[in-house]
Amino acid sequence: MSGPPPEFGLIARHFAPLAGPGGLGLLDDAALLSPPLGQELVLAADAMVAGVHFLPDDPPDTIGRKLLRVNLSDLAAMGADPLGYLMTIALPRGTGDDWLAGFAAGLAEDQARFGLRVLGGDTVSTPGPLSLSLTILGTVPAGQAIRRVGARPGDEIWVSGRIGDGWLGLRAARGEWPDPEGALARRYRLPEPRVETGRALRGVARAMLDVSDGLLQDLSHLCRLGGCAAEVEAARIPVSDASADIAALATGGDDYELLLAAAPEDASRCAALGLAPIGRFTEGPPRVTLRDAAGGDITPRRLGWSHVE
Amino acid sequence: MSGPPPEFGLIARHFAPLAGPGGLGLLDDAALLSPPLGQELVLAADAMVAGVHFLPDDPPDTIGRKLLRVNLSDLAAMGADPLGYLMTIALPRGTGDDWLAGFAAGLAEDQARFGLRVLGGDTVSTPGPLSLSLTILGTVPAGQAIRRVGARPGDEIWVSGRIGDGWLGLRAARGEWPDPEGALARRYRLPEPRVETGRALRGVARAMLDVSDGLLQDLSHLCRLGGCAAEVEAARIPVSDASADIAALATGGDDYELLLAAAPEDASRCAALGLAPIGRFTEGPPRVTLRDAAGGDITPRRLGWSHVE
Repeated sequence: MSGPPPEFGLIARHFAPLAGPGGLGLLDDAALLSPPLGQELVLAADAMVAGVHFLPDDPPDTIGRKLLRVNLSDLAAMGADPLGYLMTIALPRGTGDDWLAGFAAGLAEDQARFGLRVLGGDTVSTPGPLSLSLTILGTVPAGQAIRRVGARPGDEIWVSGRIGDGWLGLRAARGEWPDPEGALARRYRLPEPRVETGRALRGVARAMLDVSDGLLQDLSHLCRLGGCAAEVEAARIPVSDASADIAALATGGDDYELLLAAAPEDASRCAALGLAPIGRFTEGPPRVTLRDAAGGDITPRRLGWSHVE
Repeated sequence: MSGPPPEFGLIARHFAPLAGPGGLGLLDDAALLSPPLGQELVLAADAMVAGVHFLPDDPPDTIGRKLLRVNLSDLAAMGADPLGYLMTIALPRGTGDDWLAGFAAGLAEDQARFGLRVLGGDTVSTPGPLSLSLTILGTVPAGQAIRRVGARPGDEIWVSGRIGDGWLGLRAARGEWPDPEGALARRYRLPEPRVETGRALRGVARAMLDVSDGLLQDLSHLCRLGGCAAEVEAARIPVSDASADIAALATGGDDYELLLAAAPEDASRCAALGLAPIGRFTEGPPRVTLRDAAGGDITPRRLGWSHVE
């Protein structure tokens, strides 16, 4: 025997310490999990590719965390609690040990922060760019998951945080936008999944998702699934930089903020969670309209962006 | 509104019909699942990259099926029943609709055959090669999952199917090995996960895994985790082509056959499942020895291969 192969060593050294009890120390073909009684499992998967979803020279500790947070945001949008995740990594040949150590350290930090553990995964080599895929598991009390379907005319539209930080942050990270303290670039590299807020919205949000493709485009999904239209007041959209074009901020994507429909009588509960009301769902065919302060239609032609052209 | 973005269309058209009830028509951020009472969940993830794990010109219907089958093989190795899966796809730009239709058709075929449904996923674009990642979910009665840990001295070593077909099949697919009826190339493109056999081995196999990195290397994992050595009789390894070098077949990998430890009193149960006995676990430090008919040590220096060099 010539000893375990390098792959086994890589995984064991950097990732086995991250594994939860269900991960069996990442020694088995698969992980074992007993979901808590009375809970439904929530499952989501997202992928990221260097140069497409993050910058190739982003610090390694932020890359794994960003993917984890993007997936945590999917749980938040369903009102779910994090449980664990599986990650696959396609590594360019020659990826150094320092890079892997930084990558794993970042994951360890966010595992502790958000209360979940790695359950398994796979590491392969690729002649292409670094590519990551993550499947996240969460739990929600049976019947209480928040769906995308459910917005009705008369519901108010609420958002968490600030919209457009993903767009501003990418520009800041590229040196194309002023960012003296680096806060915007950090937001791009490390979005803030609204897990606590999502959980608090069980029984309040009638429909919800997280803003990944652009506020207006994601809102159009809620319209299509709810069979209603939406009117958004541009001046009420919370933004970090009022000098930026509101259409760019509202279509830029990568915000990972919650966007939801709530009945008018739940307004105070939404406001107490720090959410901002930005408009209203209305009767009519699925259509999103963005209005300026004078009520003029300033809806951009393109509502967001898509990962596949 | 300019209509849904192309990504949404791609997913909806080709993949939504594949979704099970838990997948919510792939319309939500995440899937919902209520695991059956008394069952544990089994989870595994694997990734594949074009040019590394399959040939770039492999028929599209076999590519998704191969990844699904590789993951089904991980379930089989734990004695689990298939439940569902999430898949992420990093597509090179310009991937045609025909390719996607073929890819989805292959998945549909194997979903029906193995009794599981897609629960979710993500489609992104990549400047690199086609890269796929799949997380599979299965169930096993609580406490009955078969682990890699548990081989003991005196246990017999059994394998399913034929060893080395992955190695022969890759050569056949490249035109480097005679394969008049194409059977070997088909085995490389579509391995046969031993789901039924794995389920039948609950309570029989003391330790089990599936052969992915090479028979001898995977056997070395069972040795390390069981704290014992293993002796394999080359002549007893079932192979498809006796003219091939046994060391190549026993180290080639990609077989996705079951490799297990069983007590001698369970020999008839193993034989009834069509398994072949190839040797025995023995006292001693973890070490795999391959012996010829005369008892000579013909162990190759390298026991298998690794996905990451």
